[in-house]
Amino acid sequence: MTHRVINFNAGPATLPLSVLEKTRDELLDFEGTGMSLLEHSHRGAAYAAVHAEAKSLLKELLSIPDDYHVLFMQGGASAQFALVAMNLLDGGSADYAVTGTWSKKALAEAKVLGGGRVAFDASAGGGGFTRVPKQEELDLDPKARYLHITTNNTVAGTQYHYIPKSDAPLVADMSSDILSRSLDVSKFGIIYAGAQKNLGPAGVTIVIIKDSLVGEGNAALPKIFRYRTIVDGDSLQNTGPTFPIYMVRNVLQWVKANGGAAGMEQRNKAKAALLYATIDGNADFFRCPIELESRSLMNVVFRLPTEDLEKQFIAEAAKNELMGIKGHRSVGGIRCSIYNAMEPSSIEKLVGFMKDFAAKNG
Amino acid sequence: MTHRVINFNAGPATLPLSVLEKTRDELLDFEGTGMSLLEHSHRGAAYAAVHAEAKSLLKELLSIPDDYHVLFMQGGASAQFALVAMNLLDGGSADYAVTGTWSKKALAEAKVLGGGRVAFDASAGGGGFTRVPKQEELDLDPKARYLHITTNNTVAGTQYHYIPKSDAPLVADMSSDILSRSLDVSKFGIIYAGAQKNLGPAGVTIVIIKDSLVGEGNAALPKIFRYRTIVDGDSLQNTGPTFPIYMVRNVLQWVKANGGAAGMEQRNKAKAALLYATIDGNADFFRCPIELESRSLMNVVFRLPTEDLEKQFIAEAAKNELMGIKGHRSVGGIRCSIYNAMEPSSIEKLVGFMKDFAAKNG
Repeated sequence: MTHRVINFNAGPATLPLSVLEKTRDELLDFEGTGMSLLEHSHRGAAYAAVHAEAKSLLKELLSIPDDYHVLFMQGGASAQFALVAMNLLDGGSADYAVTGTWSKKALAEAKVLGGGRVAFDASAGGGGFTRVPKQEELDLDPKARYLHITTNNTVAGTQYHYIPKSDAPLVADMSSDILSRSLDVSKFGIIYAGAQKNLGPAGVTIVIIKDSLVGEGNAALPKIFRYRTIVDGDSLQNTGPTFPIYMVRNVLQWVKANGGAAGMEQRNKAKAALLYATIDGNADFFRCPIELESRSLMNVVFRLPTEDLEKQFIAEAAKNELMGIKGHRSVGGIRCSIYNAMEPSSIEKLVGFMKDFAAKNG
Repeated sequence: MTHRVINFNAGPATLPLSVLEKTRDELLDFEGTGMSLLEHSHRGAAYAAVHAEAKSLLKELLSIPDDYHVLFMQGGASAQFALVAMNLLDGGSADYAVTGTWSKKALAEAKVLGGGRVAFDASAGGGGFTRVPKQEELDLDPKARYLHITTNNTVAGTQYHYIPKSDAPLVADMSSDILSRSLDVSKFGIIYAGAQKNLGPAGVTIVIIKDSLVGEGNAALPKIFRYRTIVDGDSLQNTGPTFPIYMVRNVLQWVKANGGAAGMEQRNKAKAALLYATIDGNADFFRCPIELESRSLMNVVFRLPTEDLEKQFIAEAAKNELMGIKGHRSVGGIRCSIYNAMEPSSIEKLVGFMKDFAAKNG
């Protein structure tokens, strides 16, 4: 029996056990080919089938309309911060809703390129990032090339529970909540996401882009940094991260077998509801600093009465094999990341521990 | 007993069996932590040790001087084609020795950015890319920001067996021969290499850069595309491709246990010598189109009397579990890629097959 702990890491994050087992079992001999998927040519038939299936599963599970492309890129969301601006600004300006660490970085790259404008800043009143904007709070530039949002803020623990409206195309960094719920992709111009939270391991970035935004490709950009090149090459213009893409394929098979986006949404809502109910039900001991309507279903943050108690809580949790619950160093406190692959039974174990700890130390 | 064939793929390529076995054995539980390396935080202690060891092993095995940085990046050599030019051109021009498909692409990115100049073109006389330049054939611009070479040409089957001299810093795409032989890194300004041939799987790019070339970072570039950012972040400025880096660490451990760069060089020379001797020793049947002094020790290309015989050769090789020997679609013929991990005994099996085939069909 393999030793496995419960892993609340914010990303890279826990993966479905069955996916890991399948990956292990075929690591030396992929589907009877006598070589590992790690050793297969990115241009060979074995990998081509994996590549195509990863793409078609994502299209199916997110009901991606036909006028969108699914790309497998590299460099994480951080590379997309730059690439979105490089490809879409075209001498103009774009609006950014700043709701945390990562949207600030996305804005900074657009500013380097001369075109980032703040449409909302959740930290403007002081007190950090504890909410996302309401639609009417967005100060939109009618000439903006796009509106950029971060749908879930991994560090802060906030999440949009509606899709903002904007005349400009909506560009969303969905790294920490992609495929965690049903989604109307047609409302977006570009969706991008590092895979390492809900979709697989680190090393591949999913980009879903509306065909009309791909354009001809800006001739002033290096070819490899034009979305046009990646679309035309079907993400095989050069050697891609074949093993991470294969792992994404495996995770998508697991999502499909577990009810798809709707199934994940139901499962994720139930997990988060149990955890938030435990926090709110022990309000003399636990406190969630996030505005009620902005609470994330992916990254649940909370505080204890003192920092000493938080340290003790983290240490005792680790003794119970509940790992990775320390809040991000920039905000402190506790953060439990409960992405798709986190089992409901693990949340039950966590809340049991929380109640015991509160009873003993409250 | 796991079924394994002999894999002559040009990259992604064969990996040492012991590396794959170790990876498989700890895939669900990395070093007793109860989670997969795939699930470990890039900021946690377990991964940090892997990251540091991969870096220090590379420094040790290539005797990298202290005034060089080792970076783990993404996007393959193709991204470096653009990034080198973006970071180093600075409004000037750079020299490119064009010796194959990939150096042509590198030059094209510099041209997009306004500064690519041909210092040599191996295809200029017609007849394709069958050699690398001699030192005296390089037409060097005294004002060039750098001289770019491709040390081994995977498609063509050519390789430099000397290090070109240039007043400008030497930038080398070493994707297909890094760590295949002893190397004087101090002769280079930048070395970059996709890992998927000699160092591990696809999905991570090694960059070795002299500190004096990192500079302050060009403020006009997106931060994520400045070498300065990656140096300052120790390649952890954002989530990197942790699993591919871990695989590189595992491969480097294997290289160290097998004699380091010098051991690889000895092994690779012996493998290539046996293969070329078989080609040259059956000159009525096999023919290597590459100039003698430019022959690659990594990608051995040859032709048979007719294309029909080549097809038959590839098909019969496959029946003998000798896979991936078809030449690149742009040049045809046969290509056997025999990187570090290719076992000498596999070359013996290959040449045995070649002799039999020549005897039966010659």
